[in-house]
Amino acid sequence: MTLQEVLARIQPVEQAIAGQTQARLDRLTKPLGSLGRLEETAVRYATITGEVKPAVPRGVVFTFAADHGVATEGVSAYPREVTPQMVLNFLRGGAGVNVLARHAGVDVRVVDIGVAYDFGSVSGLIHKKVMAGTNNLLVESAMSRDQAVQALQVGIELATEAAREGIGLIGTGEMGIGNTTPSAAITAVMTGRPVAEVTGRGTGIDEAGHARKVAVIEQALDRHRPNRADAIDALVKVGGLEIAGLAGLILGAAARRVPVVLDGFIAGAAALIAVGLQPLCRDYLIASHRSVERGHQAILEHLSLKPLLDLDLRLGEGTGACLGMSLVQASIKILTEMATFEEAGVSQRD
Amino acid sequence: MTLQEVLARIQPVEQAIAGQTQARLDRLTKPLGSLGRLEETAVRYATITGEVKPAVPRGVVFTFAADHGVATEGVSAYPREVTPQMVLNFLRGGAGVNVLARHAGVDVRVVDIGVAYDFGSVSGLIHKKVMAGTNNLLVESAMSRDQAVQALQVGIELATEAAREGIGLIGTGEMGIGNTTPSAAITAVMTGRPVAEVTGRGTGIDEAGHARKVAVIEQALDRHRPNRADAIDALVKVGGLEIAGLAGLILGAAARRVPVVLDGFIAGAAALIAVGLQPLCRDYLIASHRSVERGHQAILEHLSLKPLLDLDLRLGEGTGACLGMSLVQASIKILTEMATFEEAGVSQRD
Repeated sequence: MTLQEVLARIQPVEQAIAGQTQARLDRLTKPLGSLGRLEETAVRYATITGEVKPAVPRGVVFTFAADHGVATEGVSAYPREVTPQMVLNFLRGGAGVNVLARHAGVDVRVVDIGVAYDFGSVSGLIHKKVMAGTNNLLVESAMSRDQAVQALQVGIELATEAAREGIGLIGTGEMGIGNTTPSAAITAVMTGRPVAEVTGRGTGIDEAGHARKVAVIEQALDRHRPNRADAIDALVKVGGLEIAGLAGLILGAAARRVPVVLDGFIAGAAALIAVGLQPLCRDYLIASHRSVERGHQAILEHLSLKPLLDLDLRLGEGTGACLGMSLVQASIKILTEMATFEEAGVSQRD
Repeated sequence: MTLQEVLARIQPVEQAIAGQTQARLDRLTKPLGSLGRLEETAVRYATITGEVKPAVPRGVVFTFAADHGVATEGVSAYPREVTPQMVLNFLRGGAGVNVLARHAGVDVRVVDIGVAYDFGSVSGLIHKKVMAGTNNLLVESAMSRDQAVQALQVGIELATEAAREGIGLIGTGEMGIGNTTPSAAITAVMTGRPVAEVTGRGTGIDEAGHARKVAVIEQALDRHRPNRADAIDALVKVGGLEIAGLAGLILGAAARRVPVVLDGFIAGAAALIAVGLQPLCRDYLIASHRSVERGHQAILEHLSLKPLLDLDLRLGEGTGACLGMSLVQASIKILTEMATFEEAGVSQRD
């Protein structure tokens, strides 16, 4: 499927099914509405999939890795070689996302979409490198339009394959030293907020590093003037390959009616791109958590998403998404495994 | 062990171990502190158990059921027969707590500590009935001092047995039509806040019912004048048997250095009693979630506990505790299963 075909294929979620699903929840042995956001999440899942009594879905978190030319501007606390090192850590199962994915009972699939390192034919890695890291967005476009579309296409294909395998829940993850810089740039472009308001400390830069990061993004936006009405233009000029891949993943999942659990700030930037390309895909998104990274709040507000968790996380990789996927699965079990008042012989309210 | 022996046995948590545990977390392949409250929870668990690298604990949620004489005053939206009906639902595995416990991989143990119904010898139920429901606290003391101590003792014994079995994480659950009324009364007594400020809608009473509930509690407190400095006096005059059992469970767990994950409002009232009897047990508590029930916030503030989740839950039974226990287990897996920078060959920050 081409990008245009996917965009055309995405339909509104089945809002009509929400009432039926809530009616089932209201027959279960609990006071009306007493499971709060679990009930809300179950209803959201039902409207996306079109099933009032869905099966508990198998989940996969896709962790896209890529490098960033802008990392040479001193915008990150960590050296660039950490990106491939962490990819190898993911493949060995030793990273935070691996631990939390095992805990949640979901799989992790690691995708090299643009790491500046030759992994050879290392097994377990999904080899989809579009380019060996983006260009430095401070001095030139991060990527070409062809490369942006190619990266979107990678995400679309992976989501499409996953849906074919019967995966019913997709989580977003990423790794890329420097990637809060393009994410903040995209957030500023797509939400219209000032750069300083959406730029945070990332992995933990100091005051001076933060000021430099804000200045780099402001200069890049001045130079490139990305067109907010053309989300691909934002990707090309100030984006990242993992962000493009994740945006494609969201679109591909929405086209197949598979709910997407967003991780934090970088996932949010990808969601801004996906929603920019096809506003209908917003309703396929579930926000797992509110990140410490300050720009995330602006994204959540822009997309009208209310996160399930608020645990002061800022690791990325898909860690928060794993915890959120576990809550989504819990909400579906509530909908489908609890006894009704009738089944349990429990009296209703006076 | 008598109550006095348990109170004497409870020691301060090992605060000294917090630094060592954080030092281990800081060697793991993630930016410093980037797993936020998961790291904080792992440190808390370590200080309670005294182990820097604890095993992932087996968890049990204890759901204490009891009836309340005050239910005849029209303070609940549900009829009293729902208490035993729900107990049977728990035993068949059809209630919310059963679904979420299975999801979290923890067991549910159901305790009849005071239901006004003869369960005969139904299997699966822990038979510990102290009396067949409390007296109506509007007109007389809810229970005698002997009964209160006996109910505390039930909780202590169950926690002690669980610790002997190797259970490393205990969750609190309860069922009892009318039990937000004694919980609000206890909260008013132990925190000193006005009744109207800590009395909520419970299972969902209307405006008139809520006004009646507030008036009932105010009259009961006027009549009995419970002594805040004597937590057992509060239990006797305006308490409940499941609340007493849970308070005992907390004390028994703390005496054995087993962390306790609190559910919502009723669990909070029990925690106020336990902390009233032995202030050191506060540090053994982890708050799973912030309940919709308005008095819960007053309890959390009084105990200086910050809940892990805020999902608009108000079901009780131990449902929120199950979700919280899953997060505690996740935090321990982070502490013990993630690779360090050295192990993974990942470069540290610049």
